Amino acid sequence: MTRSWRSQQDDRAARLAIAAPLARGKQVAAVDTTALLEALIRPHDRVCLEGDNQKQADHLAQALAAADPARLHDLHIVQSGIVLAEHLDLFARGIARKLDFSYSGPQSGALVHALNAGTIELGAIHTYLELFSRYFIDLTPRVALIAAVSADTDGNLYTGPNTEDTPTIVEATAFKDGIVVAQVNEIVDRVPRVDIPGDRVDFVVEAPTPFYVEPLFTRDPASVTETQILMAMLALRGIYAPYGVRRLNHGIGFGTAAIELILPTYGESLGLRGKVATHWALNPHPTLVPAIESGWVERIHCFGSEVGMDGYIAARPDIYFTGRDGSLRSNRAYCQAAGLYATDMFIGATLQIDLAGNSSTVTADRIAGFGGAPNMGADPHGRRHVSEAWLRAGQEAGDVGPLARGRKLVVQLVETVGEKQAPAFVERLDSLDLAERLGLELAPVMIYGDDVTHIVTEEGIANLLLCRGADEREQAIRGVAGYTEVGRKRDRAAVAALRERGVIRRPEDLGIDPLDATRQLLAARSIKDLVRWSGGLYWPPPRFRNW
Amino acid sequence: MTRSWRSQQDDRAARLAIAAPLARGKQVAAVDTTALLEALIRPHDRVCLEGDNQKQADHLAQALAAADPARLHDLHIVQSGIVLAEHLDLFARGIARKLDFSYSGPQSGALVHALNAGTIELGAIHTYLELFSRYFIDLTPRVALIAAVSADTDGNLYTGPNTEDTPTIVEATAFKDGIVVAQVNEIVDRVPRVDIPGDRVDFVVEAPTPFYVEPLFTRDPASVTETQILMAMLALRGIYAPYGVRRLNHGIGFGTAAIELILPTYGESLGLRGKVATHWALNPHPTLVPAIESGWVERIHCFGSEVGMDGYIAARPDIYFTGRDGSLRSNRAYCQAAGLYATDMFIGATLQIDLAGNSSTVTADRIAGFGGAPNMGADPHGRRHVSEAWLRAGQEAGDVGPLARGRKLVVQLVETVGEKQAPAFVERLDSLDLAERLGLELAPVMIYGDDVTHIVTEEGIANLLLCRGADEREQAIRGVAGYTEVGRKRDRAAVAALRERGVIRRPEDLGIDPLDATRQLLAARSIKDLVRWSGGLYWPPPRFRNW
Repeated sequence: MTRSWRSQQDDRAARLAIAAPLARGKQVAAVDTTALLEALIRPHDRVCLEGDNQKQADHLAQALAAADPARLHDLHIVQSGIVLAEHLDLFARGIARKLDFSYSGPQSGALVHALNAGTIELGAIHTYLELFSRYFIDLTPRVALIAAVSADTDGNLYTGPNTEDTPTIVEATAFKDGIVVAQVNEIVDRVPRVDIPGDRVDFVVEAPTPFYVEPLFTRDPASVTETQILMAMLALRGIYAPYGVRRLNHGIGFGTAAIELILPTYGESLGLRGKVATHWALNPHPTLVPAIESGWVERIHCFGSEVGMDGYIAARPDIYFTGRDGSLRSNRAYCQAAGLYATDMFIGATLQIDLAGNSSTVTADRIAGFGGAPNMGADPHGRRHVSEAWLRAGQEAGDVGPLARGRKLVVQLVETVGEKQAPAFVERLDSLDLAERLGLELAPVMIYGDDVTHIVTEEGIANLLLCRGADEREQAIRGVAGYTEVGRKRDRAAVAALRERGVIRRPEDLGIDPLDATRQLLAARSIKDLVRWSGGLYWPPPRFRNW
Repeated sequence: MTRSWRSQQDDRAARLAIAAPLARGKQVAAVDTTALLEALIRPHDRVCLEGDNQKQADHLAQALAAADPARLHDLHIVQSGIVLAEHLDLFARGIARKLDFSYSGPQSGALVHALNAGTIELGAIHTYLELFSRYFIDLTPRVALIAAVSADTDGNLYTGPNTEDTPTIVEATAFKDGIVVAQVNEIVDRVPRVDIPGDRVDFVVEAPTPFYVEPLFTRDPASVTETQILMAMLALRGIYAPYGVRRLNHGIGFGTAAIELILPTYGESLGLRGKVATHWALNPHPTLVPAIESGWVERIHCFGSEVGMDGYIAARPDIYFTGRDGSLRSNRAYCQAAGLYATDMFIGATLQIDLAGNSSTVTADRIAGFGGAPNMGADPHGRRHVSEAWLRAGQEAGDVGPLARGRKLVVQLVETVGEKQAPAFVERLDSLDLAERLGLELAPVMIYGDDVTHIVTEEGIANLLLCRGADEREQAIRGVAGYTEVGRKRDRAAVAALRERGVIRRPEDLGIDPLDATRQLLAARSIKDLVRWSGGLYWPPPRFRNW
């Protein structure tokens, strides 16, 4: 047998040898980064250019985008986020061709253009945990270009609070004989803590500027509307309270920000402190500060950090996961797993929802990707531990008898009419048109209707667990769809019957007067209020500071 | 506000101060281990005493079991495996009271006794990934007692090939201001690679003997039966081939071992090399060696290692994930995630299956736990990437139209009559009786019927994807249940109609003559054959060496 079983090791050694003259030990000067990448990367390589939900290896992105397409071409990019302009430049210049990713917030429009123009060959749009999983099976990066706060000369890395995807990317790459290059803000004698051991890191570049972090999870309380407050009251009284939801994840919209902001006011008046919302899989949302300070929260595990929250987090180690250095240790892979398997509820907003409860955040000309919502908003059939909330949801779904199991609560917050007066309830999701136009094999559905348990609108709550059959489900959805066309086409008798059975619950059924849904209920009504709640520890990004 | 936000840090510092006199730096002598644990642990603490699927922190287990119950009592044990006698001794002596776990192979009988006797208060039986997830939400260990091969004086740990659960346990504990104690086989100047950075480790004990590893995944080809070979042929021809299953996980029984052993023979004759079974989430099964050597396998990511396989793995780095030191890097959390989200098929044996396809490996007097099967044997609703196998399974399930999605293949291998002539097909699972007797809130079901796509017996394959409704499903199951009572009660006309539609496929429908299912088809017929295939690199444990 003449087959080599060490071809990856040999190939790696050959690449490292070519790159070696550029480095002193593991250090490479920033002016040489493009040369380094041209030495280390080969055409058709699978490359992860760390673009997370928040943290961006922006120097390495610029350096790769500046490479010579005659030397580096047809790369297969496998990374969470397509966030920077450089990420798309790679494709425009022919350096990269194929793309597997999860999220593309700011580039969601440009991405559709690139797909239409044929400059990107799309692999798939994943959820985070799903893409990470494929790193270990069939999408293992050959080269990983990552970002950290500091490194020592052995290559030990300190990520700071935004650890995020880095340990997962590095584990998949380094232990499959791939190559790991880190950009860091500074090289130091001793890192404050070791987030990534140096023997998994091949090269370190001190970047000219600190890596970019996107403040994705900051919601200004000033923008929370009274409709959102009403829906937050409905959710607390109609879902959190009866199910006793203690372990949960919140989406990132204003709807869940409103819930966070009325915990210390309306939630307190319901006597829910300590009974709901105690254990979280959540980024460090500034809007949760008043609830934390009011003693609602026991523990939060984070996917990443949030710009401006680091000082507050470091001062609240009983709540957050922190390192010996005192700062947050986040971890997207573990937090996504926790959101899937260890929480009883996912609640988040959506843009569009159809008559079966399928939802999408895709609009006709943007692909924002999936991020983590489909993972957290799915009922995990592998779950085998019980909780009060989970068992009750299962019982409501009619799962009784010796084989009865529970259900995860998956709640969608939807204002019946969205931006530009577009109805949120539709007969057909816009994403289906986009899928057809782009020839996608799978329509971009954020959460499938069979996993959704409740829909909350300003008109009330539809409890889909209690629906028996597709017809009841449709009428329950129409019954909270307000004055949209879907809502107006409801069968009034059927909807009345569903309300009679508690499938649909109006504000008055829950003892809520919509007139009470005022901004007075918000524990903080501005970013400045949040700063005050934090005792000055929260330091919002400049764009949110208007005082 | 007088609340302290650093109570965990303060508590940790107080405990470390008490323990400090026992240590030189981070090192503690093995004679002092019990004293160390009595200094570090408090009554009612949540403790993870690393008991993985394979690797056992046995010295720390003995030391904890020898503690004074007047000082240490009512601990809450949160760990994957209840494997050693000492794990149960903790409860018998009152040192521990509550238990949350995943797997209890060799102690499954003793565990039922302890539950019956009331010495254990059961939290829940989890799947691995689910328990890991809860470490970050509501079951975070206060103290983690872990095992590694070696440590340096800074506490950097080398786990060797059995990395398994360690990184996950340590991350949850160390970053929540918990305490981490490691037993190691030796203390060295420099570890071969850093699996766990030293700043996450508080104390290191050089154990008197190397930690115990259970050889869980070694199946002697000599014990593979012709019935299992027939079922393996059915699976390859009826499932692997038509769906083109490239990414998969195998269970640990003889049924899947038979499949592994006929890949280079029967599989080769079907022309399937390179077309199926190329990418794996799998422990290093010795029975896969012939297929690897024959060029079937591209890549394997492992949950843990397997006794005797380390030399072979180190010589095949193109196949396995290995570190710079040359040895395997396994990781149970990542591999379980990969098994959930990045594979298209889980195939494994089960002991009992009911008329709806629900299965269980629980017998009346044993609780073996769940391990990973329910996780990998579940259709993940959060999946958003397509593959040929996944799409085809979805289409067969009737999922068509613009919102069509795929399905994971979940295949159960069942000999119709099991050990002691007990029928594998039953009207009611034995586990339901056990659940009632022990008052469990959830019956121990390994895989729920609604996730099962195929059942393979020696009588044929039932494709449950093609069944429409519970009645068809029941008849499809009866139709492959052989001469069991469930099988004999089949509606012959209905079964014939299902066979006509291809829902049931007999060996002859697949061009398989059962007389061809002989041991001649096994690429290796003994452990010695496996050693030969490995070029002498596989070194089986003594109990498997009989030559």
